[in-house]
Amino acid sequence: MSSYFLTDDFLLQGKHAKNLYHDYVKNLPIIDYHCHLPPDEIANNKQFANLTEIWLKGDHYKWRAQRTLGVNEEFITGSASDEVKFQHWARVVPQTVRNPLFHWTHMELKNVFGVKEYLNESSGPKIYEHCNQLLQTPEFTTRSLLKSFNVEYVGTTDEPWDQLAFHKQIADGHFSIKVSPSFRPDKILFIEKQTDFFHYLGLLENASGITIKDIPTLLEALQNRVDYFHEHGCRVSDHGFEQMPGNLQLTLTMEMEFEGFLKQRSIPYSAPENFMGFVLLELCKMYHQKGWVQQFHLGPIRDNNSRLNQKLGANSGFDSIGDFPQAANLSRFLDNLDKSNQLCKTILYNINPSDNEVFATMLGNFNDGSEKGKIQFGSGWWFLDQKDGMEKQMNALSNMGLISTFIGMITDSRSFLSFPRHEYFRRTLCNLFGEEMDKGLLPNDEKWMGDILKNICYYNAKEYFNL
Amino acid sequence: MSSYFLTDDFLLQGKHAKNLYHDYVKNLPIIDYHCHLPPDEIANNKQFANLTEIWLKGDHYKWRAQRTLGVNEEFITGSASDEVKFQHWARVVPQTVRNPLFHWTHMELKNVFGVKEYLNESSGPKIYEHCNQLLQTPEFTTRSLLKSFNVEYVGTTDEPWDQLAFHKQIADGHFSIKVSPSFRPDKILFIEKQTDFFHYLGLLENASGITIKDIPTLLEALQNRVDYFHEHGCRVSDHGFEQMPGNLQLTLTMEMEFEGFLKQRSIPYSAPENFMGFVLLELCKMYHQKGWVQQFHLGPIRDNNSRLNQKLGANSGFDSIGDFPQAANLSRFLDNLDKSNQLCKTILYNINPSDNEVFATMLGNFNDGSEKGKIQFGSGWWFLDQKDGMEKQMNALSNMGLISTFIGMITDSRSFLSFPRHEYFRRTLCNLFGEEMDKGLLPNDEKWMGDILKNICYYNAKEYFNL
Amino acid sequence: MSSYFLTDDFLLQGKHAKNLYHDYVKNLPIIDYHCHLPPDEIANNKQFANLTEIWLKGDHYKWRAQRTLGVNEEFITGSASDEVKFQHWARVVPQTVRNPLFHWTHMELKNVFGVKEYLNESSGPKIYEHCNQLLQTPEFTTRSLLKSFNVEYVGTTDEPWDQLAFHKQIADGHFSIKVSPSFRPDKILFIEKQTDFFHYLGLLENASGITIKDIPTLLEALQNRVDYFHEHGCRVSDHGFEQMPGNLQLTLTMEMEFEGFLKQRSIPYSAPENFMGFVLLELCKMYHQKGWVQQFHLGPIRDNNSRLNQKLGANSGFDSIGDFPQAANLSRFLDNLDKSNQLCKTILYNINPSDNEVFATMLGNFNDGSEKGKIQFGSGWWFLDQKDGMEKQMNALSNMGLISTFIGMITDSRSFLSFPRHEYFRRTLCNLFGEEMDKGLLPNDEKWMGDILKNICYYNAKEYFNL
Repeated sequence: MSSYFLTDDFLLQGKHAKNLYHDYVKNLPIIDYHCHLPPDEIANNKQFANLTEIWLKGDHYKWRAQRTLGVNEEFITGSASDEVKFQHWARVVPQTVRNPLFHWTHMELKNVFGVKEYLNESSGPKIYEHCNQLLQTPEFTTRSLLKSFNVEYVGTTDEPWDQLAFHKQIADGHFSIKVSPSFRPDKILFIEKQTDFFHYLGLLENASGITIKDIPTLLEALQNRVDYFHEHGCRVSDHGFEQMPGNLQLTLTMEMEFEGFLKQRSIPYSAPENFMGFVLLELCKMYHQKGWVQQFHLGPIRDNNSRLNQKLGANSGFDSIGDFPQAANLSRFLDNLDKSNQLCKTILYNINPSDNEVFATMLGNFNDGSEKGKIQFGSGWWFLDQKDGMEKQMNALSNMGLISTFIGMITDSRSFLSFPRHEYFRRTLCNLFGEEMDKGLLPNDEKWMGDILKNICYYNAKEYFNL
Repeated sequence: MSSYFLTDDFLLQGKHAKNLYHDYVKNLPIIDYHCHLPPDEIANNKQFANLTEIWLKGDHYKWRAQRTLGVNEEFITGSASDEVKFQHWARVVPQTVRNPLFHWTHMELKNVFGVKEYLNESSGPKIYEHCNQLLQTPEFTTRSLLKSFNVEYVGTTDEPWDQLAFHKQIADGHFSIKVSPSFRPDKILFIEKQTDFFHYLGLLENASGITIKDIPTLLEALQNRVDYFHEHGCRVSDHGFEQMPGNLQLTLTMEMEFEGFLKQRSIPYSAPENFMGFVLLELCKMYHQKGWVQQFHLGPIRDNNSRLNQKLGANSGFDSIGDFPQAANLSRFLDNLDKSNQLCKTILYNINPSDNEVFATMLGNFNDGSEKGKIQFGSGWWFLDQKDGMEKQMNALSNMGLISTFIGMITDSRSFLSFPRHEYFRRTLCNLFGEEMDKGLLPNDEKWMGDILKNICYYNAKEYFNL
Repeated sequence: MSSYFLTDDFLLQGKHAKNLYHDYVKNLPIIDYHCHLPPDEIANNKQFANLTEIWLKGDHYKWRAQRTLGVNEEFITGSASDEVKFQHWARVVPQTVRNPLFHWTHMELKNVFGVKEYLNESSGPKIYEHCNQLLQTPEFTTRSLLKSFNVEYVGTTDEPWDQLAFHKQIADGHFSIKVSPSFRPDKILFIEKQTDFFHYLGLLENASGITIKDIPTLLEALQNRVDYFHEHGCRVSDHGFEQMPGNLQLTLTMEMEFEGFLKQRSIPYSAPENFMGFVLLELCKMYHQKGWVQQFHLGPIRDNNSRLNQKLGANSGFDSIGDFPQAANLSRFLDNLDKSNQLCKTILYNINPSDNEVFATMLGNFNDGSEKGKIQFGSGWWFLDQKDGMEKQMNALSNMGLISTFIGMITDSRSFLSFPRHEYFRRTLCNLFGEEMDKGLLPNDEKWMGDILKNICYYNAKEYFNL
């Protein structure tokens, strides 16, 4: 196995890169401040039936790859057995080289299950059995896994009407890892998806105990949930749009139309962007009042395949990178909050790497000296969550902002096996600094550089989220 | 000549890169599935008068470079003698370093004519004479050249009204290389260029024998040509737009307006984008019904220089890279076909490298597992057809799709001397993989990587086009 | 001090890079054809009070960095003493690594003041005192500094109503360095900022002695100033917009509306884009008639922070990179001038690196062979004025145009200490060529490559500006 590519120095090209990683950042705890882990599975300390359940179910990255390689849906999300599904995945892995899946797959097998060989058609059955045996042991429950990754904090993503019962269960259970909810009320903002909107409005009414009959009662209900989330440890909100809304004001007529819209529930609302802009702005003021951190994920174009989205639902692997203009609306929105000193700490994520520089320079407009790194450029997100994408984000941030203030990596994942992405990020980051030290572009001072890297990998986030 | 830069290992930086190129892909045949070679010159096995005729005529890349260097049009496309034109080109070549022209120029001279020195003012006359002598020999006819490049398949680009006489002549002549037409009916879609439109409509009527008096007869005439092309071996269509049309439906009013428009031939048609979108969609359904591959070339902004375009015509070197939004329209168009299961194999080419990630992720939305690499991200096109552009395309495809399914390179050229671009692509590709093997980012397994590279350079295309 | 990173070979990775820099370009004079140096400070040969005055005042790059690091405005632009401000800057410098500020800071300290150690909290006081002492000597006046940098030409940026008194003073004073004005009449084009517009119109009337009552008198006044500037040595104009205007024509109604607008000075002008497009086009024809070079700086989104812009004014560090479409309007504008053979030499600068390829290919549309490099792609501007940004500009220009015709670097700076950016550019450029020579991508011929680099660093600009 001497030639297996995942060595201790994977991704680390020079002496400095190796020293920076091994001596400074390798052993730091993980603050995963934004992910999509299901709180119930943490609360109940779930044990997984097999490798397919923990690794392939819900992973639309892998699904897309399989479809691209001509694997029939039957063996991906269909009715084939877990073992057959796994074997189909194993068979195509050798064809995923240069995609991040290839690195992640092998890092996850190695770090979690100690597998130090390539997954392929012939090794598949043995690896499947090996991992399944381990998955039956107490060391492989959700809580054990989180501990084994040295996770210190997990930020989940939650609907406003969530009663946070599982978060309470976790908090009450003396679990050593802090698991906090994040508030993601987007579904209330998409008024043009009318049927869904009324469905979610009902959930919001139930959760808040407030009958929503106009804009003020809508805001009251949202404030109620913000308060509730805050009481339950939430300090972070999250939003995701194609682009920020460009209209932020509701006229009196639009307000009145909203009342009629709620009563009749039939004709579409005529100013959906104004509604979204206005309500979002009010939400952001609530976040500021609570001292939260707000996140904006901008740019994807979703549900592109009607036929398969109808069959398989959203988040099944049919989303992609959009090319919407971002700068003007984003600037105006943030400025609107900043004008009245109601702009809270903010993390901006872009999905199109061509927007990296727009985002990297947007920070500086609203970093007002009130605190270090108040506005953040979020780490490479979704399709950009790979070596090249992370490097481009770090380079844009470095050249147009200050990487020393960066709060670093998140998994943004639904899987308990995704934490090696933090290792991947740390290795990539150390390599970037190390290579520039080798070239004389950075001071030849490992302590100086190493301390900055420690901040990026751990301490900046700890301070940013007051952990 | 020891220091001449075009060595056997040109572009190949490490041991792995060299082995991958020399041991795996160097000797594979060439499938040039999209180019602009003139079929008549293949049919008639044309012999060229001199190096200027075969190399400079029609090559607007070289023209642009010369104009940028202050060469008078007289010596580029004007009335100067072929020898004088060549000498003007020779004189500026040393100033083209870092532009792909510099590499191509010397690769073409070396691979085709055995010239192993730099072209410049002083070497020009000797090289001109040397090449001209060779061009008189039977080894330098069009057919001989294609054979010498180890070409297996050539896909030309043809107007719908072409009778394909030269393709028939080639097919009947027992030529060992398959030369097939591609169907490019764009001129029928640009209804806003009214005079041209009616001219081409006349050609379409003549070719199809169908009088076009409304939308149904227009579609009938197009179907007639699709059938005709199919009978003559065509399996590929091609389109080129600034962006995909955003309106795909014709109202009854618009249909009726079209009838009047055909009769009166005076007032402009009021809904050109709907016309284009609708007819294009119908064409794509015809392609699907025939089992063809469709290509979309998106993004250029053409004919930017009115003064010189008027003097020299289209395709004279006055086109450039546009920045039109691509994602939403492209997604909607492909989805429209996919909804009814009428989306055939599709190759998407972008001209603006800032759109690489939009295109690379678009594939995954419509790769439905029905066949390997159904939707393709076309190789670096036009201005992007150089080392940097090809690497960026390959990296985007790798990171956001699967490069192992890629059908690889095309010349997209009007010239019989452009085939070394396949070598250039192969060297660049092998270097990309080789360097990552050196760095431990890819498995240290030349057989595994080499087999993937063989697929990209030859076998994937062979399978994709059923050759 | 052996490990201090600013060695003689800073940025130069291989033997060729080193030779190219040291043997060919290092000692060439500097032509800084576009900057924002204050002419009065040159005319009066200003001596600076201390390092804060010459280095931190007016430098919004440093201000942004400090705000990002949580420094209070009091210590940046506020009422703190110069010494305290300097010490606040010194303290954060170690946290600016990977931002160009880190390199520039140390290059400026080393090249100008001979400081060969890192600036930080502990070295700050000593360095402040050392530099302040030097700043009191005759070697550190503005004129002495320009001479010490081997500057040959300085192009300032001036308002149309400027009487150019300081330029006259400089010209009359037998200063060995040529200091010429550039004509920047943008303020007259932004008719939608009504109050400002009328203010500037008044200044224009005063300066020209022409009463502006309609479009013809407006153009007359502008022509008057163009003539005046030309007489005083101006050969360059400059403009900066989010994007080029898309409407270039004034209808008769719009012309008449303008007359009323000037009289009433109350209701907004209804067609600001047409006004801007039309007047700009007329200005460009004047430039052509004079044989000037025109510059367009495109893409920033300015004054994003209302609260702080109101407090601190424009150009205080609240501008960022926009994502406006550029290609179509820019093409149409240049074509409009070219049609009538009134397109003068033109330099195009973009602020969003995602537009690099749009700009790099736009040149070729209007390079008509009339002179070498007539249309130029300006060097990395503002946020792009760093190693990565400059390399991307050079690569785009190389791949899609001809870098051999490039007129190279400018400081674009307000500071007399910014000239090491030319050294930074030259080292980066030499490294780019040198590394490709090492890899066999460029001919192994230092004389050939070196001569091209000399042209880029000095001779092309000298020829372009007829110096």
